[in-house]
Amino acid sequence: MHGNVLGIEAVMPDGTIMNDLSKLRKNNTGYDLKQLFIGGEGTIGIITAISILCPQRSPAVNVAYFALDSYEKVQQAFIEAKKQLSEILSAFELMDGKTQKYLAQVKGRKLPIEGEHPFYCLLETSGSNTDHDSEKLQTYLEHVMGEGIVEDGVVGQDATQNADLWSCREGITEILGHWGGVYKYDLSIPIGEMYDLVNETRDKLAKAGLIGDDDSHPVVDVVGYGHVGDSNLHLNIPTRRFDKAVEKELEPFVYEWVAKRNGSISAEHGLGITKKPYIGYSRSESMIKLMKQIKELYDPKGIMNPYKYI
Amino acid sequence: MHGNVLGIEAVMPDGTIMNDLSKLRKNNTGYDLKQLFIGGEGTIGIITAISILCPQRSPAVNVAYFALDSYEKVQQAFIEAKKQLSEILSAFELMDGKTQKYLAQVKGRKLPIEGEHPFYCLLETSGSNTDHDSEKLQTYLEHVMGEGIVEDGVVGQDATQNADLWSCREGITEILGHWGGVYKYDLSIPIGEMYDLVNETRDKLAKAGLIGDDDSHPVVDVVGYGHVGDSNLHLNIPTRRFDKAVEKELEPFVYEWVAKRNGSISAEHGLGITKKPYIGYSRSESMIKLMKQIKELYDPKGIMNPYKYI
Repeated sequence: MHGNVLGIEAVMPDGTIMNDLSKLRKNNTGYDLKQLFIGGEGTIGIITAISILCPQRSPAVNVAYFALDSYEKVQQAFIEAKKQLSEILSAFELMDGKTQKYLAQVKGRKLPIEGEHPFYCLLETSGSNTDHDSEKLQTYLEHVMGEGIVEDGVVGQDATQNADLWSCREGITEILGHWGGVYKYDLSIPIGEMYDLVNETRDKLAKAGLIGDDDSHPVVDVVGYGHVGDSNLHLNIPTRRFDKAVEKELEPFVYEWVAKRNGSISAEHGLGITKKPYIGYSRSESMIKLMKQIKELYDPKGIMNPYKYI
Repeated sequence: MHGNVLGIEAVMPDGTIMNDLSKLRKNNTGYDLKQLFIGGEGTIGIITAISILCPQRSPAVNVAYFALDSYEKVQQAFIEAKKQLSEILSAFELMDGKTQKYLAQVKGRKLPIEGEHPFYCLLETSGSNTDHDSEKLQTYLEHVMGEGIVEDGVVGQDATQNADLWSCREGITEILGHWGGVYKYDLSIPIGEMYDLVNETRDKLAKAGLIGDDDSHPVVDVVGYGHVGDSNLHLNIPTRRFDKAVEKELEPFVYEWVAKRNGSISAEHGLGITKKPYIGYSRSESMIKLMKQIKELYDPKGIMNPYKYI
C-alpha cells in the first residue's frame, strides 16, 4: 500500500483539507505526509479520496496446490518459486495439515490431494502469456517433485478449478469458527522460525491440559496458515468457548515470542482497540513517543477515531 | 523507495534514536514514521541504517532501441509494452531526436539506427527465462512495427550490445554540458502532455531570440528525455553561458506550466536549496503548513540540514 497509493485527500480534525491527491508516481517535494494516513487507522484525519496505481489485470493466471512433508521443505519450495517463477509469482500461501483436515471435515468435502500431509501450499502465477507461464510452472513442479521437496501436487485446469483450489486456503477462516470461537493472531515472523510458534503454542496448551477432543477441553487445536512471501503467519486457536485460562497461556506468551524475533504483533490488520495495549511488543518506547507527538500535533483534542493505539 | 524500504534507523536532533529497522515486510502497528525520512532530505534526522527489499537479479535481460515518428506513437508503443510485456518490462525510456543527434555529434559515434528520427525509445525487459522473454519482445516488436507505430528498431544480442544501447540514454546528461552549461528540470507531467512542454519551451526561447546556432545566442537548444513509465520528463536546456534573460523566460514559466497540470516540479531529485522557493507549485499551502509543523515538532531548533525546503 505504501508503494501503490499515489495520492490521498484527507480532512484533518481542525477542518484543514490535506490535498495530496496526485495521480502521478513521483513527487519529491517535501515530506510524504500521505504515508502517515496509510495504516494510521483514521487517528489523524478522515481519508476522503484516494488514488491508487492499478496494474493491468493479467490475462494468464495459474494455480497449483501441493503437499509437503515438513516446514523445511515449504521453505525450499518457496525459495525455488522465487528463483524460477520470480516475476509471475503472485501468491505463495501456507496451510498446515490441520487446517486442511478440518476444512474437509467441516465442509464435508474432498481435498484436491489424497492422503494426509503435514503441510500444503497454494501457489499462484499471474502473467501476460499463458503458454510461457504454464511452461514455467510445469518446469518448477517437475523440479520440486523430482528433488523430493514436494510430495504430490495438482494444477488447476481452468478458472473453476483454480477457484476450488483457492477455496482450500480462503475457506479456512470460516471453518475454524465451527466449534464456537477462535483466538486469532496476525504476525510477522522471520520465515525460518515462522511455524515454530504454532508447534510451541500447541505444546504449551497441551501441557496446561487445555487442548483435547472432547468438551471438557476448551481448545480444539492450534493451526497455522498465511502468506509465506510476506513472512506473515496467521496463528489461529479454534475453541469451544472463550476461557481465561487459555488467554493466560496465550498472552503475553505469543507477543513475547514475536518480539524476541523482531517480528510484528499485527502484520496487516492494525491494532484497533483489542491490540492497542500491546504496541510495545512491536515498537520501541522512543518510536511510540515519536508517534504520540504526531497524534498530539495534528489531533490535539483527540477527536479522530479515539481510544485507538495512540 | 516508499514500497521497498523495510526499515530505517535514524538519529533525531535531540539524540533520540528512531529504531524502525525491521527486516520484515509487514508491520501495521502505528504510524509508518520511517516514510517521513524517505525524501525528507535529512531535515528531520540522520539516517544511520536502512534495510531494503532486494529482489533476485533477473537472469534474462533484453534491451531494444527503436525510432518513432511522433510523440503520439511513443505513447502507443508504451501502452502496448505495458500490455504485452507487463511483468518483464523493467524500463521504457524516452529520448527525443535532438538528444540522439547531439550524442552522435559530440561523441563522434554512430547511432544504433540509421537516419534522423524525431523520437527514440529504449525498452528493457528483465525476467527469469531468456527464451520466453526474447519471444515476448520479438512478438511485441513485430506488432508495433507491423502497425506502423515504430519506424525501425534494434535488439541487443549480448550484454555488450545492451550496454551500448543503454549508453545512448545514459550518455545524454554528459554530452549536454558540451557547450558550457545546462538548465535542468526534473518534472512529473501527465504522460499525454509530457512532451508539449519541450516544444513550448523551445518556441518561447526562439520567440525571445535567445536560441540559435552561433555564439550570439546563449541557448543551444531545448531537449527532452526521461522515464515514460513514471511520467517523468527531464527537460534540459543546453546553453553557451548562463544568462538572466534565459532564466526570466524559463521561470516561473516551467513551474506554472507543470502546476497547471498537477505535476511535480521535482519528480525524483528533491528540492535542495535551489528549488526550495518553488515548493508552492507542487504543494498546496495547507500541505506546506502541515509539513512545517512536522519540522518544528521534531527539529524545533532547525539544526538538521538547515536552509532546505522547510
